[in-house]
Amino acid sequence: MNDIKFINGGVTAPKGFLASGVHAGIRKNKTKKDLAIIVSEVPANASAVYTTNLVKGAPIYVTQENLKNGKARAVICNSGYANTCAVGGKELALATCEIVEKHFGIPKTDIIVASTGIIGQLMTLEPFEKGVPLLKENLSIIEGGEDASEAIMTTDTFKKQVAVSFTVGGKTAVIGGIAKGSGMINPNMATMLAFLTTDIAISAKMLKKALSEDTQKTFNMVSVDGDTSTNDMYSIMANGMAGNKEITKDGEDFKAFCTALNAVSTALSKMLAKDGEGATKLIECTVEGAKSEKTARLCAKSVISSSLFKSAMFGADANWGRVLCALGYAGADINVNKISVSFSSLAGTAEVCENGMGLNFCETNAKKVLSEKEIFVKINLNSGDKSATAWGCDLTYDYVKINGDYRS
Amino acid sequence: MNDIKFINGGVTAPKGFLASGVHAGIRKNKTKKDLAIIVSEVPANASAVYTTNLVKGAPIYVTQENLKNGKARAVICNSGYANTCAVGGKELALATCEIVEKHFGIPKTDIIVASTGIIGQLMTLEPFEKGVPLLKENLSIIEGGEDASEAIMTTDTFKKQVAVSFTVGGKTAVIGGIAKGSGMINPNMATMLAFLTTDIAISAKMLKKALSEDTQKTFNMVSVDGDTSTNDMYSIMANGMAGNKEITKDGEDFKAFCTALNAVSTALSKMLAKDGEGATKLIECTVEGAKSEKTARLCAKSVISSSLFKSAMFGADANWGRVLCALGYAGADINVNKISVSFSSLAGTAEVCENGMGLNFCETNAKKVLSEKEIFVKINLNSGDKSATAWGCDLTYDYVKINGDYRS
Repeated sequence: MNDIKFINGGVTAPKGFLASGVHAGIRKNKTKKDLAIIVSEVPANASAVYTTNLVKGAPIYVTQENLKNGKARAVICNSGYANTCAVGGKELALATCEIVEKHFGIPKTDIIVASTGIIGQLMTLEPFEKGVPLLKENLSIIEGGEDASEAIMTTDTFKKQVAVSFTVGGKTAVIGGIAKGSGMINPNMATMLAFLTTDIAISAKMLKKALSEDTQKTFNMVSVDGDTSTNDMYSIMANGMAGNKEITKDGEDFKAFCTALNAVSTALSKMLAKDGEGATKLIECTVEGAKSEKTARLCAKSVISSSLFKSAMFGADANWGRVLCALGYAGADINVNKISVSFSSLAGTAEVCENGMGLNFCETNAKKVLSEKEIFVKINLNSGDKSATAWGCDLTYDYVKINGDYRS
Repeated sequence: MNDIKFINGGVTAPKGFLASGVHAGIRKNKTKKDLAIIVSEVPANASAVYTTNLVKGAPIYVTQENLKNGKARAVICNSGYANTCAVGGKELALATCEIVEKHFGIPKTDIIVASTGIIGQLMTLEPFEKGVPLLKENLSIIEGGEDASEAIMTTDTFKKQVAVSFTVGGKTAVIGGIAKGSGMINPNMATMLAFLTTDIAISAKMLKKALSEDTQKTFNMVSVDGDTSTNDMYSIMANGMAGNKEITKDGEDFKAFCTALNAVSTALSKMLAKDGEGATKLIECTVEGAKSEKTARLCAKSVISSSLFKSAMFGADANWGRVLCALGYAGADINVNKISVSFSSLAGTAEVCENGMGLNFCETNAKKVLSEKEIFVKINLNSGDKSATAWGCDLTYDYVKINGDYRS
């Protein structure tokens, strides 16, 4: 369990996975890739969790149907249009799967399909007809993985990919993943888009269990703006090429897998928070001393989501009252008079609150601490031994600018 | 019931109320008034609702205690410091009441005390010792009411006061009110600060009932930034000087009072939304055709609170997908496929969505509609006959600017 190593690459790092990303003409800007595919060379077990938003993108419904048997061999994803609230959306998602079947020979029901971008605008099938053959031509390991991670980006400013290797049942296995985030990010149940691959052998049932538990601690703990998207999806394909004995129940092997999965999804979660629309800072908020994990999560998420707190972080203002305020309305079971709060970063630490009351801290030092690019907010509720961490970013002029005219 | 007339003034418009506002030295800026009082010449019944935030300002606890007997004759309120999470806060709030008793002869337990401003900083009693005698000297009707509404402001850009006259039991009665809002505005159960007065005769029990019901439809439907403050309070004093037969139960008279109360609190709610920190636009969102009032409220509040939607309004971008998205995660019982949405303003109307799908609307017209200062978002869920309205504002660069360094 402790031999997890971060390695190069993303979704193509595990054995037997290829990928590519191309410009298919969905977006007007020809230099922006807008269509990605991830393919397993052999059949794979698969699972996914989805947005809890009642307004769901058409691809979500198609993927849910396709994953009912716990199997998938490919992910196809476009950026630019969300294929949500648009007439004929489901037909378009189904037709996309058919085009993939035609060119890749993968059954259309073994495909995870996803879209991200503007809600409500009509899409045509043409870019997919043109783009899927291009995806086939460009299929590769290293470059293909990079291109796929680029093609799913919307307002993201950097590609998000990560991979780890670890040992399971005496074999070396790998988990890789790519993600896109930026705005409309307040995952609940699932996330924006995160596609993971692994060469481990694991049953669809255990894969589902691992994913459901993992998302509570990772992607669901990220918030950029409190808006839960209509197209969130977090999926994984496991093709068994690592050669381990298939994991079919709880135990050491499952635990090893979950720990490695958590390493990948935590890394991607932090990238999502760091690249929140307009963000200049990554904020990590850890709540300790909680009566329950649920309390810890509610508190951490509430702080990270507060617009006032986020604005204060942008201004490097140690306005800890806003932390207390957000804890107070978190809907969690806390004793306000026991709370302590500190801010820290590479530049040091500022203890700002103890027993729910302000401490007499040095403003100059606090300013220095909060002027760094990664800020750690540590909250101790002093009422138990459970903890949780959430990730977010500051609220900046650029968030408003980006979202004031997103559709142009 | 239909004879409600808006009249000049605020809290001093009803018979027997005086007020004043002065600079007491709580704030450094000597031109900014920071202490206000509202006084009834005769004993009055009173009631208040408070923030649901677990972190509460010390004045909230003192006021709750003082209002247990349903009586109050004065409101004392300072701006600049919130008296929250600060050592000795409760003692300071109690001592403030004692100073008011000493100078005004009003029992210290008949006083509503409130504070608004920075959380966690220590306050001293000195400004109150100096300021309360000044409040006494300056007590008056017209100017005093204006000054009080000014003294409770923090980042507000304009004074918020309103008054209506109406007939009840054959007598003319008046309700007046002042409020402050701007940031940390997402009232839940109560509001930022709203102080109302009336010369109607009504029992404390019925006053409480009217207030509790009213706040659900008015102040609780305002959101500026989703942050529920620690110091929210909405109070009313009724001194009976209108000479009507005291209202002690449901009936015509109570209904007349509630309707007039709603007119005052709705007007103040809209002012709060309009003056949201950094706001350039007032957004009114009405949800019709809901199965229940609760559904309608959840939906309207969710739209008005979405950072993405608010940013789009700032940019006059008819990105209705964000309205649908916010409806989808509202936690309400809705059928997505029946939703219709339109934007309107003085410049016209743009129908943008029907049956959950986008309409082919004119972008130029939509831009014109959304470039006005008051925007009406109309949503029909087409699933029932209940409705609700919420008020908010756009999210702008200035919100971030104001809150990036609020404490300086």
